[in-house]
Formats: sequence, structure tokens, C-alpha cells
Amino acid sequence: MIARMSTLFLRTLREDPSDAEVPSHRLLVRAGYIRRAAPGIYTWLPLGLRVLRKVEAIVREEMDAAGFQELQFPALLPREPYDATGRWTEYGDNIFRLKDRKGGDYLLGPTHEEMFTLTVKDLYSSYKDLPLSLYQIQNKYRDEARPRAGLLRGREFIMKDSYSFDVDDAGLQRSYEAHRAAYIKIFDRLGMDYVIVAAMSGAMGGSASEEFLANAVNGEDTYVRSAGGYAANVEAVVTVPPPAADATGIRAAHVEDTPDTPTIDSLVQAARGLFPDREWSAADTLKNVVFMLTHPDGSREPLVVGLPGDRDVDTKRLGAQLEPVEAEVFTDADFAKYPALVKGYIGPQALGEASESGIRYLVDPRVVDGTAWVTGANVAGRHVFDLVAGRDFTADGTIEAAEVRAGDLAPDGSGPLELARGIEIGHIFQLGRKYAEALGLKVLDENGKQVTVTMGSYGIGVSRAVASVAENSHDDLGLVWPRAISPYDVHVLATGKDEAIFQRAQQLADELSSRGLDVLYDDRPKVSPGVKFKDSELIGVPTILVVGKGLADGVVELKDRASGQREDVPLADAVERVVAVTRVAG
Amino acid sequence: MIARMSTLFLRTLREDPSDAEVPSHRLLVRAGYIRRAAPGIYTWLPLGLRVLRKVEAIVREEMDAAGFQELQFPALLPREPYDATGRWTEYGDNIFRLKDRKGGDYLLGPTHEEMFTLTVKDLYSSYKDLPLSLYQIQNKYRDEARPRAGLLRGREFIMKDSYSFDVDDAGLQRSYEAHRAAYIKIFDRLGMDYVIVAAMSGAMGGSASEEFLANAVNGEDTYVRSAGGYAANVEAVVTVPPPAADATGIRAAHVEDTPDTPTIDSLVQAARGLFPDREWSAADTLKNVVFMLTHPDGSREPLVVGLPGDRDVDTKRLGAQLEPVEAEVFTDADFAKYPALVKGYIGPQALGEASESGIRYLVDPRVVDGTAWVTGANVAGRHVFDLVAGRDFTADGTIEAAEVRAGDLAPDGSGPLELARGIEIGHIFQLGRKYAEALGLKVLDENGKQVTVTMGSYGIGVSRAVASVAENSHDDLGLVWPRAISPYDVHVLATGKDEAIFQRAQQLADELSSRGLDVLYDDRPKVSPGVKFKDSELIGVPTILVVGKGLADGVVELKDRASGQREDVPLADAVERVVAVTRVAG
Repeated sequence: MIARMSTLFLRTLREDPSDAEVPSHRLLVRAGYIRRAAPGIYTWLPLGLRVLRKVEAIVREEMDAAGFQELQFPALLPREPYDATGRWTEYGDNIFRLKDRKGGDYLLGPTHEEMFTLTVKDLYSSYKDLPLSLYQIQNKYRDEARPRAGLLRGREFIMKDSYSFDVDDAGLQRSYEAHRAAYIKIFDRLGMDYVIVAAMSGAMGGSASEEFLANAVNGEDTYVRSAGGYAANVEAVVTVPPPAADATGIRAAHVEDTPDTPTIDSLVQAARGLFPDREWSAADTLKNVVFMLTHPDGSREPLVVGLPGDRDVDTKRLGAQLEPVEAEVFTDADFAKYPALVKGYIGPQALGEASESGIRYLVDPRVVDGTAWVTGANVAGRHVFDLVAGRDFTADGTIEAAEVRAGDLAPDGSGPLELARGIEIGHIFQLGRKYAEALGLKVLDENGKQVTVTMGSYGIGVSRAVASVAENSHDDLGLVWPRAISPYDVHVLATGKDEAIFQRAQQLADELSSRGLDVLYDDRPKVSPGVKFKDSELIGVPTILVVGKGLADGVVELKDRASGQREDVPLADAVERVVAVTRVAG
Repeated sequence: MIARMSTLFLRTLREDPSDAEVPSHRLLVRAGYIRRAAPGIYTWLPLGLRVLRKVEAIVREEMDAAGFQELQFPALLPREPYDATGRWTEYGDNIFRLKDRKGGDYLLGPTHEEMFTLTVKDLYSSYKDLPLSLYQIQNKYRDEARPRAGLLRGREFIMKDSYSFDVDDAGLQRSYEAHRAAYIKIFDRLGMDYVIVAAMSGAMGGSASEEFLANAVNGEDTYVRSAGGYAANVEAVVTVPPPAADATGIRAAHVEDTPDTPTIDSLVQAARGLFPDREWSAADTLKNVVFMLTHPDGSREPLVVGLPGDRDVDTKRLGAQLEPVEAEVFTDADFAKYPALVKGYIGPQALGEASESGIRYLVDPRVVDGTAWVTGANVAGRHVFDLVAGRDFTADGTIEAAEVRAGDLAPDGSGPLELARGIEIGHIFQLGRKYAEALGLKVLDENGKQVTVTMGSYGIGVSRAVASVAENSHDDLGLVWPRAISPYDVHVLATGKDEAIFQRAQQLADELSSRGLDVLYDDRPKVSPGVKFKDSELIGVPTILVVGKGLADGVVELKDRASGQREDVPLADAVERVVAVTRVAG
């Protein structure tokens, strides 16, 4: 087919949109692929819809090839199933809720675990019906607190979500592996640079879980990897604790005056003054950071996180551990309500569920028994020294909330970690029996006994994948699409005023189209060659064929968008050359 | 491809769903195409999704062939544009509204006039950019008061909506005709039995408008047609009024005692008693029916409709005239608030905006000047005779609210009307400049002058089309799909226990698949031939190939689902025969 730019519903923009934070957003808007309709809500213009459809088609082909079956649930869903699993409440502000004219409660589906579970329950009843994997490609909704980065974090977005149903854990493992394999095929076909990392399962419940992250300097997700092959989303990194220490010989805890030392730095200085014969560093201090937690039901309580003073709390790691509970920084108003918490001088001895304050206290896994710390004495201007974990205090438990740093050790012994950033484009979970139990999905096993089905849940951000590819495949001039999802196979430009140029360009476009190529043809009569070149670079079709001045010498110019290489090709060879180039994979 | 029924996510039901009112609903649920998720909200199971996708593909092909360009707006839309056109309010309870976490107002799009208008305004600015037609295929939402009949009147449904943009009326007419032609191609390809009727434009504003109605005995829409070629939705029928009468010689209006005559029948009896030398019929009386109107802003006022006593008010015709105002029957409580309205004895002399009551009074077009009527005297038990329109009373205007009857005359002089029922599957409107004016969509014309763009709006109910086809193409045994949208091209049944039967059936399925056919293969090992036959009839694939007992004699059975015709075919010819049969159009 041929799309003529003289009539195509497209206007490229020379200016970046004011709200664009990342290249994919900036370029997809400027090149006329998408347009903002509301915060985090986008319109797909004709060019963008073509790319989206190509991504969808690749996802669908690989899902079908794996034997997964497509269906389509509504986006507007009744409350009841989400109440049964608790997600109606757990989602908090993150889902869109609405009432119908009769006052019935509905939501816009963020994911569809409940509906799939109930439908399988309706239709199936025997182990013979399993394994089963179902999927859909559909508009999803999340009322993000901070929609940002265009398609990367939207409030209406397109997802492929699938769900597997098995009679036992071994079956779930096989279904999980089948999805993993299909995802690898999909992201390979999309030409993405990605990694597979261990992940937290978050609000979804369940056990094993991995994420597919597209490598991207602007990615929202941080992950770690070791030379030895370990890779994990930073939220999922497990700290390697030191062995328990021997506290024998450590003197009894002693409180010291440390006036005006509310920060770790000032405390280290004070320690050096008090005990100059020792090397003091932030790592010797135990920092206690207070958060106010909000539960899905709205109730609030404080939480203190204790960690070595040389580390900060990573709020994303903390959030992942607490989900669906939300944590915010403790405010002065909060401190006023909890006099047991002396700001800047909080110490373990005033903390813990068993303490007088009753305030929950969780520590970093590095705070092992026998380690001695300098920490707050719960009195302004005073700190306690040689306070030994397990001897002088016991926390309510540990929490993986400290920042992960380059050089930290991988938990599998595969060496030091390095940090990188990525965009989550896929997520595979072993959900287990949480939803099947909540909604009563059981089948008869071989012995005629009712067993609860075990499930997996697998997502691909389809609209996000479009942006992720753009994020990794562009240059200063514009987008550079991989052939598999380019909106067109070739971009033919007629540059010049000569009628013969337009006639020849039209003829080439026709011939390329008749060879099965999708052709974008810039036939605009009064647009300068410069503008046409700029637009072609911005739009990013991988192969550009310029019909212009060279025509007098019997040549046209074949240009590779990615490398910028140009080559004069005899007119007679042009069609074959373009066909050959565009049929090369990738 | 081959879908195996042993693993296909499908369970047919022997029982009708309890809420099914019409055959399409009953059969689509029973045959496993769709499943109810909430009132008016359905899940597309694998079989249903295949049919839906085929309908979508036909719609898309014809839209593209006509040069219309596809894009995709969000379903979740901000309030502001709908406020600018007044539709946020006008839609009343009929749209789903919601708030985001920041309290912003949103709606789920019922149609997208506003968004298209604003986007064209953003991108285009010159008459040279026009004409333009854009479309999308998308989930739409309407909070129907009474969702019913399965997919025929749902609350989440799939629509193709398109919009044309032209610089002048002649252009709009051309765009309208182009859509009309594309719709004819689409509905012809879908194998639908349909009519094109004149329609009201309703809440959409605008002038010329036609509906495409699928003929269906269970259709919600009533339309009329004349032998001479007139066809109109009953809401759009224009009454042919009699010529103005000469009232000279009609005696002055006179009030008579007519005790206990609150109904037309009792009044006709009384008239016969009082003036036995005349023939009296209900057509001599002027019936005044009171409604309570509710405006979109919630304000209420009464309206009296006067019409010949032999006709009833058609509430759908009345509603179409008043939209977006809603009319309800006047209650006794309402009467108590308006003492000027004497129930059963209401007459024109107490009515009209200029009267003391101030109550609006609209009459049927048959109430022309010079006609004399028996009607209420606004006193219980009394009626006025020889009350002449134009001489003794003047209404505030006329209204097309009386029922249309078979035998009424077509307004274009093409003869008497007959009534039929149908399902609205398409609607084409000449919107005009309403939206462009409200949202400021102007372009520069040839003379450099700003002109307001004129628009058309065109819809096809895609999910409704699936049900409409089912409604017209089924029998007692189940669905009978036209080939163009059947979920599969052929249904291969392996009937019997013999392993050789299954092997041969599998081989035939493979060969048919390799010939490009989509094959549904009933390979279920322990299911009786009877159940397989029943399922194949219920599912409705047009061609059924039975591999069973005949195999011993070297034959398989080829069955045509529509006619029920069966034929033994030599095994060696089976593939060619099936290929030949399924390639026949329709």
C-alpha cells in the first residue's frame, strides 16, 4: 500500500512538547505518532497506530504459536470479584472506580486475574482440561499518581496479559517456562535490547517472578547484574548479611553527650572527638529512619527502619516490601504526635512492638547479632555507643529497604554487582493459588479429588514496548525504527519541482507497493527538499529512497536511516535494491 | 490453522441462559461465543473473538479502501471538551462518569466527536488539508437504563466511528455519500439483510441522517416503507397533514355535560347520545396527553400533546423529538400540583404558553386550522364540541409524536406505509457545523478567510453486527454463519472410536489447513457422535466434514450447515470438495 503525505493525517512538529521528559515521548509526539489527550492518556495517530498494530501482531503470533488462546474481557468490570480477592481495597487510589446509574460499583480493569479465574471456573472442572493458557490484548487502566514519560507510564495503556492454569506446581513451572520462551521470541523479534531479571511479585501475590527490562538510560527501573550472571530488579535484590559477630569483649553500651549531632556526618565527627583512638565512619552508626505508613483501609501507623548510617533507604525497595501499604516520610507534625521519637536521636531502645512506644522497628539485614553500633539515645543531644544487636536490642524483623550499591555482592556468590537502568516491558509471575483459592477455582484430579488450581500471570506492556523501542532506537534527528515494527517499509521522497520527478517517484512507489511493500510517499508538491529530508529523519522509516536531481543522470538515492549511509542507485535497479534491503531481517 | 476441540477454551451449554430474550443472545452464549460479565457487559470467548475480528477486518478494509484514515482515541476522556459542546450535561445518566485521584472529571467515551474535532483543529488549518475522513474501531460506553438482548444493547460495546471534515456543504455531501457507499459494501460483505432508512439526528445535532437497519423480527427499531420506495425510521416519519379546512358554517363551540367520560371510548358514546344524527368516532375527538419533562439540568415542566383520539402517543417518537429532554407519564402527584389540568377533561383552552396556566401545548400535524374537535372543557364531566383549531384555539406548535400506522401515507407521495422491525447497525449523519463551532475548528478558505468546517459523523455497531447476523442467521439447532465471518472455514468431526478415524480426520484437517483453510477439528476422544453433531450445529460453521463409519467404504460426509444437505464424498476428493465449497462467496 501507499500512504501519500499530501493527504496523510500527520503534522510533524519542530518544537519539543513542553511536557516531554524522555526522547521517546518527545520524538513520538514531534513525529506525529501520538498526541496527548489528558495526563497519561494518549491518542494514537495513524503512524503510531501502525507501529502499535505491528507490535500487537508479533505478540499475538508468538502467543498463538505457543498454543495460548486469545479472548477478550471487558475493561469495565464489576466490583464483586475484586472484593473477593481484596484487590478492590488494596489498589487504593491506583485504580479508576465508578458507579453506574443504579449506584453499582465498577472499576476499569488494571489486570484481569479475577475475571480469568472466574471464567475458567465456569467452564472447566477436570484436570483433563488443564494445562490452559489464555490471553488478551487490551486497554488497561491505572490511576498513576504521577503519569509521566509519555507512553512509558500512562493511565490508559495497552497490555497483553495472559494467565496459566495448572493442576500442580510442576505444571505451573512448565507454563511459566513456556511464557518465558514466548517472551524471549517476542522481544527478540521486536529488536529490543533487554535483560531478564529476578523480580518481586508485589501486590499480585505469588512466588517466582521475573521481569523483562529494556535497557534504557531513562528507564524508571534500576536493576543489578554481576559478571557471574546474576540479574535482579533492584527491589528484588537480597542483601548478603555478614556472619553473626562475636560481641564478647565489647564493653557495655554507654550513653555519651553528643550535642548538636542530628546528622550522621555530625555524629561521626563527634565520635572522632570522643574516642580519637578509633577509626570512625558512617558505617559504624545505626541510622533510624521513620516513615508513616498508610494501609489500604486508610489506617496509619509509624514504622522505623534501622540501617547502617552509610546507606540511605531506597524508597522503591521499601515500597516494594510494604505494598500495598504506602510509606511516606515522617513529618514534623507526625513527630509531634509521637514524643517517644526524638528527631535526630532515635535509638532502638525506644522502639519495637514490645517496647513502651509499640512502634514497629525493622532493620537492615546487615544488622546481625553481635554487631555494635553508635545510635540515638532517644534524648536530644545524646547517642549511645557500643549498642550490640541481639545483646542490647532486638528488632521486630529485617527489611530489604537499604539502597543497593555498585560493588555490593550478588546473593548467589557470583561477584560484585553493577547497576543499570531499564524499562519494564514484560513480567512473568508464578501466582500460585491465591486467586484460585479466593474465588474457588478447583478441578477434580485423577483420583476424583477436588484440588485448587495453580496459576501464573504474564504481562507485556504493548504500548510501552512502542516507546521502549523508540527510547533505544533514535538519534538527534529523530526516530530509527527496526524494520519489524516500522510504520512503513520504505519512505519515498520526491524532491524538486520537476513534474518528471513526481511522475517517476509515483511510479517507483507503485512498483514497490506491487512488490508487497508498505510505502510512505512524500508527494507534497510545495514542500522543500530540506523539509522532506528532515521529516523523513524524524519519522524514522529505516529505508529512504530520494527521487530528485539525480534523476537527470538516471540515478536515485538510497539512504539507510540508521547509519546515514547514502548511495546513488541506477533508476533501473532501484526497486530490486529496495526490496532486497527491506527483506533483510531486523 | 487448526483449532482442536480437545483443548479449545469452549464449553457449549444445553440450556438457554435465563436472561436471554432473543435468539442471538441465547445462541451466542450457548455456543460459547460470549459470556456475560455484568449487565450489558460481555466477554468475548475465543470463538466469539474470531467472529468479531472478521467483522472488524471487513469494516477496516472498506474504510481504508475509501481512503479514510484510522487512528485511535482513548476511551477514558477528560470532561472539558464535552462541556464545551454541552454533551457532558445533555447525556444525563447515559454516560459513565468518574473522577481520578486528583478529583478531575472524566467520562468513558460514548462517541468521540469532540476529540476528533479538537485533533483536526490542532493539526490542520487550510482548506487544502480537506476533505478528510478519520475513523477508529474501539470500545464505547453507554450506561443504558435497560441493557438487554445480549450484544444488541450493551453498555460496553465495539463501534467503528468515523468523522468527515469538509470546507463546505457540497464537500460534506460527497463525504456522506462516500461513507454511505462504503457502508453498503460492508453490510453486503457481512451478508446482512438490511434497509437504509431516513432517520432523526437526535442528540447529535445536524441535518441529513440515515440509518442502516438489519431486518429482524426482534429488532428494537420500527421502520416504515412504502411500495414506492420510501423508508424511514418510525421516529423520522413525517405526518402528511390534511389540507387546512374551511370552518365556515361550523357552529360556535359549545360546552356539553358529559358525565363520567374520562376516556375516548366513553366520550364517543356520550357524543352519540347527545347528537345521534352524526357518525361519531374517536377520530373526531382531540385527546390531550400530559407528560412531565426533565431537562438535562434536572429542571422539570409539563407538556401537553394534543392528537386525534384514535391515535396514541408513540413514546419513542416523542422522545426522539424532545431529546435530550426526557418525558415521563404524568402522575397523580403531578396532577395535584397543576390544578389547571383536570384529568380526563383537559382541553386546549386552558393550555399554551400564552394561557393562564402557561403550560406548553403541542399538537399533532393533523390538527390543522379549520378542523373541529370534541375535547375537554377543563371541568370534570364536561366536554366542548365544535372547537375549531385556529378559530377557537391555537397551540404552541406541532409535534411528531402520534403513532405511525400501517396504511398511513408516505410523505413523499409514494403510497401507503407498512411497518417492519430492524436492528440499527449503522448510522450516517450530516452533523454540520455544531461541533466545529463549539470547539472553534476553522480553516482558511481559498480567499484567506476563516471558515468553520462542516462535519459528518458515521457509526457502525461492530459488536452489534455480530449479534445482528446471528439474529438473522440461525435455526432451531443453532447458529449458521455466513462464510465471510464464520469463526472457521470448516468443522471436521471425528465420529467413532476407531483410531483409524482419528488418524484420517487429523490428516484431512492438516491438508485443509495447508490449503489455507481455518479448521475447527473435533478431536475429542470420548465424546459421542451425537454430541459432536449437536455441537457442530450449535456452533454453526457453514461446512461440516464428518469422518466416521463411512470411512470403511472410503467415504466421508460433507454437510452444509445452512441447508442441512449431506453428501457422501470419496475420501480422495474430500479436500478438493471442501476447498471448492468454502471458496464460494457468501
